Amino acid sequence: MPLKPDIERPETQSRRVGFAIVGIGELSAEELIPAARTSEHAYVAALVTGERGKGEAFALSLGLTPDDVYTYEEYDRLGERSDVEAVYVVLPNSMHREYVERAAKAGKHVLCEKPLGVNAADAQAIVDACAGAGVQLMTAYRCQYTPEHWAARQAVQEGRLGKIKLLDSIHVQVQDDPEAWRLKLGLAGGGPLPDVGIYSLNTIRFVTGQEPEWVFAAQHQPQGDLRFTEVEESVSFMLGFADGVVANCLTSYGALKTSTLRVLGEEGALLMDPAFPYDGLKLTIEDEAGKFEPSFGSYDQFSQEFDHFAQRVRDGQRPWTPGEEGVQDHVIMDAVYESARSGQVVRLKFVEGQDAFRGTPPEVPGQD
Amino acid sequence: MPLKPDIERPETQSRRVGFAIVGIGELSAEELIPAARTSEHAYVAALVTGERGKGEAFALSLGLTPDDVYTYEEYDRLGERSDVEAVYVVLPNSMHREYVERAAKAGKHVLCEKPLGVNAADAQAIVDACAGAGVQLMTAYRCQYTPEHWAARQAVQEGRLGKIKLLDSIHVQVQDDPEAWRLKLGLAGGGPLPDVGIYSLNTIRFVTGQEPEWVFAAQHQPQGDLRFTEVEESVSFMLGFADGVVANCLTSYGALKTSTLRVLGEEGALLMDPAFPYDGLKLTIEDEAGKFEPSFGSYDQFSQEFDHFAQRVRDGQRPWTPGEEGVQDHVIMDAVYESARSGQVVRLKFVEGQDAFRGTPPEVPGQD
Amino acid sequence: MPLKPDIERPETQSRRVGFAIVGIGELSAEELIPAARTSEHAYVAALVTGERGKGEAFALSLGLTPDDVYTYEEYDRLGERSDVEAVYVVLPNSMHREYVERAAKAGKHVLCEKPLGVNAADAQAIVDACAGAGVQLMTAYRCQYTPEHWAARQAVQEGRLGKIKLLDSIHVQVQDDPEAWRLKLGLAGGGPLPDVGIYSLNTIRFVTGQEPEWVFAAQHQPQGDLRFTEVEESVSFMLGFADGVVANCLTSYGALKTSTLRVLGEEGALLMDPAFPYDGLKLTIEDEAGKFEPSFGSYDQFSQEFDHFAQRVRDGQRPWTPGEEGVQDHVIMDAVYESARSGQVVRLKFVEGQDAFRGTPPEVPGQD
Amino acid sequence: MPLKPDIERPETQSRRVGFAIVGIGELSAEELIPAARTSEHAYVAALVTGERGKGEAFALSLGLTPDDVYTYEEYDRLGERSDVEAVYVVLPNSMHREYVERAAKAGKHVLCEKPLGVNAADAQAIVDACAGAGVQLMTAYRCQYTPEHWAARQAVQEGRLGKIKLLDSIHVQVQDDPEAWRLKLGLAGGGPLPDVGIYSLNTIRFVTGQEPEWVFAAQHQPQGDLRFTEVEESVSFMLGFADGVVANCLTSYGALKTSTLRVLGEEGALLMDPAFPYDGLKLTIEDEAGKFEPSFGSYDQFSQEFDHFAQRVRDGQRPWTPGEEGVQDHVIMDAVYESARSGQVVRLKFVEGQDAFRGTPPEVPGQD
Repeated sequence: MPLKPDIERPETQSRRVGFAIVGIGELSAEELIPAARTSEHAYVAALVTGERGKGEAFALSLGLTPDDVYTYEEYDRLGERSDVEAVYVVLPNSMHREYVERAAKAGKHVLCEKPLGVNAADAQAIVDACAGAGVQLMTAYRCQYTPEHWAARQAVQEGRLGKIKLLDSIHVQVQDDPEAWRLKLGLAGGGPLPDVGIYSLNTIRFVTGQEPEWVFAAQHQPQGDLRFTEVEESVSFMLGFADGVVANCLTSYGALKTSTLRVLGEEGALLMDPAFPYDGLKLTIEDEAGKFEPSFGSYDQFSQEFDHFAQRVRDGQRPWTPGEEGVQDHVIMDAVYESARSGQVVRLKFVEGQDAFRGTPPEVPGQD
Repeated sequence: MPLKPDIERPETQSRRVGFAIVGIGELSAEELIPAARTSEHAYVAALVTGERGKGEAFALSLGLTPDDVYTYEEYDRLGERSDVEAVYVVLPNSMHREYVERAAKAGKHVLCEKPLGVNAADAQAIVDACAGAGVQLMTAYRCQYTPEHWAARQAVQEGRLGKIKLLDSIHVQVQDDPEAWRLKLGLAGGGPLPDVGIYSLNTIRFVTGQEPEWVFAAQHQPQGDLRFTEVEESVSFMLGFADGVVANCLTSYGALKTSTLRVLGEEGALLMDPAFPYDGLKLTIEDEAGKFEPSFGSYDQFSQEFDHFAQRVRDGQRPWTPGEEGVQDHVIMDAVYESARSGQVVRLKFVEGQDAFRGTPPEVPGQD
Repeated sequence: MPLKPDIERPETQSRRVGFAIVGIGELSAEELIPAARTSEHAYVAALVTGERGKGEAFALSLGLTPDDVYTYEEYDRLGERSDVEAVYVVLPNSMHREYVERAAKAGKHVLCEKPLGVNAADAQAIVDACAGAGVQLMTAYRCQYTPEHWAARQAVQEGRLGKIKLLDSIHVQVQDDPEAWRLKLGLAGGGPLPDVGIYSLNTIRFVTGQEPEWVFAAQHQPQGDLRFTEVEESVSFMLGFADGVVANCLTSYGALKTSTLRVLGEEGALLMDPAFPYDGLKLTIEDEAGKFEPSFGSYDQFSQEFDHFAQRVRDGQRPWTPGEEGVQDHVIMDAVYESARSGQVVRLKFVEGQDAFRGTPPEVPGQD
Repeated sequence: MPLKPDIERPETQSRRVGFAIVGIGELSAEELIPAARTSEHAYVAALVTGERGKGEAFALSLGLTPDDVYTYEEYDRLGERSDVEAVYVVLPNSMHREYVERAAKAGKHVLCEKPLGVNAADAQAIVDACAGAGVQLMTAYRCQYTPEHWAARQAVQEGRLGKIKLLDSIHVQVQDDPEAWRLKLGLAGGGPLPDVGIYSLNTIRFVTGQEPEWVFAAQHQPQGDLRFTEVEESVSFMLGFADGVVANCLTSYGALKTSTLRVLGEEGALLMDPAFPYDGLKLTIEDEAGKFEPSFGSYDQFSQEFDHFAQRVRDGQRPWTPGEEGVQDHVIMDAVYESARSGQVVRLKFVEGQDAFRGTPPEVPGQD
């Protein structure tokens, strides 16, 4: 959406960070590329795709040329493009590692879709590759960049709800297409857990700023459903935090789209419902005095991410959700799967401190 | 509330079932006795209390006489009162057994507050006593007698939501008074679980008509909080049903009042929020077509219970929520506590069939 | 509902104000008499009814005796009852005047249902009768005694919404029974306007504290509908206030029950929906920051009225909604009907000042 | 948003209707041009603007060339462009006539923003110009092209609400900038009435399919507010339909953004709140059985308009909201202003039949 065509701000243009979008699936086409158009600090400078024709059509619509389109084979030639300072990897999970490593080798900063990898070891390798190459790495957790989620976090952390006691989150949706890569274990690394359940997990960690100490989980993989020959349909998991705080979570590819987050405190409670869509988030904070539903101006979640990472590329500071933030979710998801398999509680390594894996806070509308 | 004073329907009067209310605490005073006034099939014929003065004041307001008031010592003399056909036991949980047994011995039918006892063995003894004496026994699960809960059950059982996948329920409230009997293990048999968490458990069993096969639970009893020297503050529990269906539940005495129930199906979902108060229940049924919030005329939950049990006393049929229904909740809650203590999954005995412990369905407004 | 039986507070008993309820229809039976039970400052000491049997049944349930029941013929004998200090007149509108005058003559203070009379002249005669007899008179406007309506008023008057610009209110419900006295012009004085539309009118006057300067109205009386041979089915009216503030109102006996109030200000808006039922009122206050729905503890609207008037009887201060408040609504409703008949704007006499017809503010939960 | 770049559907490309967007203000930049990208039947082929530089920047982002940009002086040269089959006029109201007439003369079909002109005579001249030139003319009433508004219309017209009795609509928002052309009488033709109040008016006419028989209105133009030296701040108006149906409406530039529509029927009611924004419309249909909030897939209101008009250009059928539909709103708004000035009811010419001014119904998601 060309609200602010380049011609209107040549001075900004020179300083915006050029991104190559790696992978042009639905998310790129419908969300990321439009978001880049409205980003203040980022723009799309190149496209990487397996289908050159499709890439060229998109390039045209972006005011780019066929020369800005690269196939996966040509990917490493991005190293020659000084105007491409960063890549945004939007590929099936199992391909993240290769494409991050190649980008790092080419000296490009990396914004990588969630989940960061297919398991903790894979994700750690991604972190190591970027660290070794001296490039920035950010996991694209859009729900850590919205004013609604920040207002929820603020309500929790500034004591508005009193001492937090319990949390509850649901993120389910129907995955219909048996051919989707998200249903292939080798490509996805798991089923709904790393795809949609990760929002519950990650957002609970974000609003509390705490890490779980143990997990318990049960999963279900129905017999005879062609969609679930490789990955689970549903996972129910319980996360145990310090001081007896417990979070209950549900995720599934088998139920009508629902996304919620509740935080229950001694003196107040908050509800996000829906909690995780691209827009239309609704936050309600309740205490003895009543219910409050804060309003925020319009914004784009993906622009928020682009802007934050572009600013970190410019200032060299650690992104709010660096690779380590993505690794930690994998550590916990690995434990969730282990618990589901063993039927036992799995204890996690103790993590000290608040926001242990996070960097510089983003600028968020409505936050000071 | 004397909407229909007796004089208006002498014919009914002779056939209504006279109840003795055993225990005049807040629930009796504020809910049960007013409800009895509007009951079609029941009326209050006697009061049993430890404080005669208080009992006589209530008697007066009910159009009863001081002779209709009995102390606990005089309780067995109810046997002489042919007009008292049933008792409603509204005492601390640990006293249920004694007062049910004495009522049964006196030939009175028994409506007993939930939880039926303090554990499964205690509850079973209550069932046995009534069976032995040939009197009816009903557990007072008011949420199995409302049109909203029946509409939720119907949506689940008639397939409106498609195949059920997952459930989630929260029932928490702040218990402030460290002296409350509900915080004494000997009197209550547990903390929030048998008091408020039981609503989640019982309602999940009711709407699905199914029994869980296993449970996992974690509980928290904070150090240094005078309220929780004997019982837990919070319990998080997971119930596993056939076909991989799992229900996540949260209950606590430490968080702002919240009561919810969600049922997630392949083609639809339902939400009750609030799910368990005496009035103001709100049910939303959602599917691809939209959200539907059914309306029901006004009714009183406690009158619904009185009427159902009085009808069963008259027709001799098994109540919808007999003692066995109450025992089953205790069996599960015992397993929840065992899991919380051991950190292990606890498997439950297999129960075959739908509504395994229930009797004759009640008449509910809005149901055919 | 005998929450606080007399025996528990003999000291209060002697000072509570005894009321005679005059007319035992649905409102008395279902709302007023139960409310009187929970009133802190009032109690029912006598009943006046055309059906002695019905009255005696109610008396019994209230702990009164047959001697506390009076027929309309015996009404004046209330003068002999020093324990009856006030009457609550709950009769068809056209009977208010006679029964207020007889009460005044007997030295009883008067709480009179709304509308006060059948037109402004009739209402003024009621005021004059009470003034002449030196007894207190209060119009029973329950929506001026709830915490929700006071919170709405406060939001308007303390500037939270900025300068008020426009208002809008709807109060409609279906009146089904062609035989209802509310459909007889001689008994009711009008149709939905004085019965339900009066809530919109009165509440707009209450929240603004202002009086309208002009009215315009249209009404509809359908041909061939047996219910509307004497009175109108619907009235739409516009009220013009100072500074160009206008309120649009709709009232009808022909549409599904709806009750709303909106106040639109420069910086905020408020919505009550529903705005006028006996319970379940919902207030939302909105500004740039978001939406706030305040919570209030439970209360009974009718107890609020009883308590306020009983306190005024004790302290001799002018009630918040005296007879004059009721007259003013009639003055405006007379103008509404005149406008509807003539098709012309009708200008009202200028009224100076804020809350021109009101007395001592009530104690309302949640207000300081 | 290049979801479906041209390269993917060359066959469609040749048949889509090329539009010239005339005027590149906020609406064009933020809504119309992005909407054209997702339109199935239309695309932007040229831009007309007073600022060539701005136009060229937009052109670039649309994959157009500088040759596709025209100044107002060059506007008539569009006649040479056979690929430009239609214009979308998005200029201040008083300029509509000139730019429609010039387009008509050049043989271009015309989609014109609402209000069609500055008054009924002006709007009629626009209609006449298009008729004379044999080109299509459509008034851009986006709220006649959404699934929510069609579902509301359907509920009304298929009897789901029973006989309709009353309607109520509010559309207000704060207009802050005293320099805005919308506040200049010469450019806008009026204040909030033709800009936002027209939505209430037009949507009421749309859902009922009926035309009002009379209007009454009051308006307010505050002294000393620099914004309102030429146009009114607020208008309250009442529309009288056949059978005593009345609609109350409020519009203003002085109050916090609010947009609602209520339709009250004998057996049901509907509420749209918000009723008129670009997205996030919420419709609730209520009857005795409960409340239903239908869901619709995502869509773009402006794409809906583009598609409908492009289809009519192709098939030669009359658009659903032709110029005559726009004239009729002006006829009524002229009467509203006359009533506000005179303080008298203004009667309108009788219009027979349902949807008297409308053409071929649009395809709307969720409608058959």
